[in-house]
Amino acid sequence: MLNAITPANGTRRPSIVIVGAGFGGLSAAKALAKADADITIIDRRNHHLFQPLLYQVATAALGPNQIASPIRSIVRKHRNTSVILDEAINVDRVNQEVILRDRAVSYDYLILATGAQDSYFGHDEWAPYAPALKTLENANDIRERILLAFERAELEEDGAERDRLLTFVIVGGGPTGVELAGAIAELAKRALSCDFRTTRCHDAKVVLAEAGSRLLPSFSETVSNYAYRALEQRGVDVRLGVPVTDCNEVGVKIGEDHIAAATVIWAAGVKASPAGEWIGAATDRAGRASVNHDLTVEGAANVFVIGDTASVIGADGRPVPGLAPAAKQQGAYVGKLIMRRLRGDHTAAPFRYKDFGALATVGRSAAVVEVGGFRLTGFAAWLFWCVVHIYFLIGFRTRIVIALDWLWSYFTLDRGARLIVGARTGAADMNNATRKSAAAAAISVAR
Amino acid sequence: MLNAITPANGTRRPSIVIVGAGFGGLSAAKALAKADADITIIDRRNHHLFQPLLYQVATAALGPNQIASPIRSIVRKHRNTSVILDEAINVDRVNQEVILRDRAVSYDYLILATGAQDSYFGHDEWAPYAPALKTLENANDIRERILLAFERAELEEDGAERDRLLTFVIVGGGPTGVELAGAIAELAKRALSCDFRTTRCHDAKVVLAEAGSRLLPSFSETVSNYAYRALEQRGVDVRLGVPVTDCNEVGVKIGEDHIAAATVIWAAGVKASPAGEWIGAATDRAGRASVNHDLTVEGAANVFVIGDTASVIGADGRPVPGLAPAAKQQGAYVGKLIMRRLRGDHTAAPFRYKDFGALATVGRSAAVVEVGGFRLTGFAAWLFWCVVHIYFLIGFRTRIVIALDWLWSYFTLDRGARLIVGARTGAADMNNATRKSAAAAAISVAR
Repeated sequence: MLNAITPANGTRRPSIVIVGAGFGGLSAAKALAKADADITIIDRRNHHLFQPLLYQVATAALGPNQIASPIRSIVRKHRNTSVILDEAINVDRVNQEVILRDRAVSYDYLILATGAQDSYFGHDEWAPYAPALKTLENANDIRERILLAFERAELEEDGAERDRLLTFVIVGGGPTGVELAGAIAELAKRALSCDFRTTRCHDAKVVLAEAGSRLLPSFSETVSNYAYRALEQRGVDVRLGVPVTDCNEVGVKIGEDHIAAATVIWAAGVKASPAGEWIGAATDRAGRASVNHDLTVEGAANVFVIGDTASVIGADGRPVPGLAPAAKQQGAYVGKLIMRRLRGDHTAAPFRYKDFGALATVGRSAAVVEVGGFRLTGFAAWLFWCVVHIYFLIGFRTRIVIALDWLWSYFTLDRGARLIVGARTGAADMNNATRKSAAAAAISVAR
Repeated sequence: MLNAITPANGTRRPSIVIVGAGFGGLSAAKALAKADADITIIDRRNHHLFQPLLYQVATAALGPNQIASPIRSIVRKHRNTSVILDEAINVDRVNQEVILRDRAVSYDYLILATGAQDSYFGHDEWAPYAPALKTLENANDIRERILLAFERAELEEDGAERDRLLTFVIVGGGPTGVELAGAIAELAKRALSCDFRTTRCHDAKVVLAEAGSRLLPSFSETVSNYAYRALEQRGVDVRLGVPVTDCNEVGVKIGEDHIAAATVIWAAGVKASPAGEWIGAATDRAGRASVNHDLTVEGAANVFVIGDTASVIGADGRPVPGLAPAAKQQGAYVGKLIMRRLRGDHTAAPFRYKDFGALATVGRSAAVVEVGGFRLTGFAAWLFWCVVHIYFLIGFRTRIVIALDWLWSYFTLDRGARLIVGARTGAADMNNATRKSAAAAAISVAR
């Protein structure tokens, strides 16, 4: 049963539907906050996630609620905007409706901002052994895998198995992989090192595997080299130029080299959400919809695709990168364009991406910043990274709390969010009775 | 396979085993921090939980990591103490071993501090429809039930079903029930009221059902009356003197009165953990082990039971209440007693409970404090409540963060921790396709 939602007062204002409340979708909503139209935001989650800090939840530095805000709160003051917690599954271009699980929503303008999902390059069977990091659930799951590995190592009497439990492999040397490797090394060698009695957390081994020839390929070579050295200083074993050829219950195979590892994390690739298929747009190899210079889809001047779901060629002829600032700029661009259309102005300057540079952090006191020709590494870059991330976090309160948490972690080397609370899914490495029951004990619902 | 864990260095220091890292167990560990003995803390969770604030996680005021600390961190500086993440399932008194899931741990002294669990008074079949609030998982589950109820009401077209979704019943008028009722009323009428477009959150109905003749039966009658009035002012429908006679997928039956409610929370009763049975002690109706005046079990001078697992008669002949301060005092008492025994001093003054009074909060700016003859209600009591709870929270960082969060909530009426992240278990109220798919959408794993 599909019920189109029409304005309650019966008048027919234009209906603008935004699918996805990530950086792009919320930025569009903000630009449309004063539009004489009904804005509907659809998301299958009730919260906006600040994904650049997701790895900090996975490594117990921040709690989930510190990097997520309820969508309804964010758009509370937009009186023209309503929020639907539901999942879009298709678009009916003929009837101009977004199809949700059990209803449909009519649109006059449609903005698809559904983001990206992880890609195992045709090896989806690796997913249970090497979880990716896209959602809060992923982050909770990975945090519990990491913490449980240390707990099990503490009780394990077999030396080889203990080594396997204390080996952590991150696949993919982009910003997420580099940040995760640095954070896990610091977690093991600093935050946890005083907490165990028989386990020597210093013995924990962190491997970062990148199939390409250098880390952080979107940065300059100088930055790649800095990141490499900074990770090596932290004891991370960086393997370049060899692809992962298998992930299984024992560990991971890098080239011909088997590494026994209880915890493997996938940070190697993304593909677009299927929104391109919903609207029948041409898509590239990563599933991203090709869009015009005004971010509309060919043949539908009222359907826009933005962010990681779109393959956008900037005004300078270069592809726009899949980064949060790019998605935000696209959202703002589309919002303003629709505002002009509502006023009867149908002109449209093509979308221009302003490149404010790129940022990545390797760990405490070490980061890389690259803005145009300007480059910064080390402690100054790390401070800059902290300030930028705190500034862009949505919500004043969250900013204060995160700033305090980071200051605290910096001075004490502590990690406050080290909780094992949920049932672990995809329990790939629980292949013998000992580990099974240790996990069962850890996750059993206390009464 | 059971392996007794013996000290690594081969010398035979006395082994003191503490089962349970709640208020009692940790307090004992602290008193034993300098003992010339090997202390082992066993808990099936990796974290200590500050249970008095659990209802704040359930009502989205605090995040889970703000009221929980890793046990290993808490005892990090006790060089004689190790922590085992595993579940105790029995005690072998003959061989002096605690039996865990797949090992055993020898003890010379044993402290059982395993706490209490919820009791449905013989109606365990009500549990799926009326979850209790004892663990972080419970709190996450209840928070998601509450938030999803509002989300579903926003999309529901049937008026009766919308009313059912906006009805919240709390069973039990003790401190937890009173605090939950007040917090849910404030959540609906303040934090959420601006966030929805079609749902009128002000219409949310909160019912507090207590079978006895007054709220907060452990306080004086004046305090009970204050709590009753404060809840009524917040719009809570308080029903006294009528027991709950059924919980099912539609709602709850109070006496002969059916209330259609999508969210029912059980705060009506507890029973002790089964530790009393493990050691073959005499137990009372609530399953608590009877102990001697020095908190040992009859016939075993080296086995102690403390906290909610024990039925303790104070030196004044009155039963000691099941409160956090009582558990802490008992833990400290037993720790010091064992310290004396290790020095060869086998005297023992009986345990004396120091009653520092009782505290409960009804909501923002309203609480009750009762210390001996002294009584405080209203804003001053609420401030006192805040200070006491922040003071007793473990960890300096947590204290600052919680203080900030409360100040923030107080001035803005906002609730920051409103996240729906996990798969809801015990999905009792998803009995038609609409609700099923709304939930599926809400909890589907985003990619």
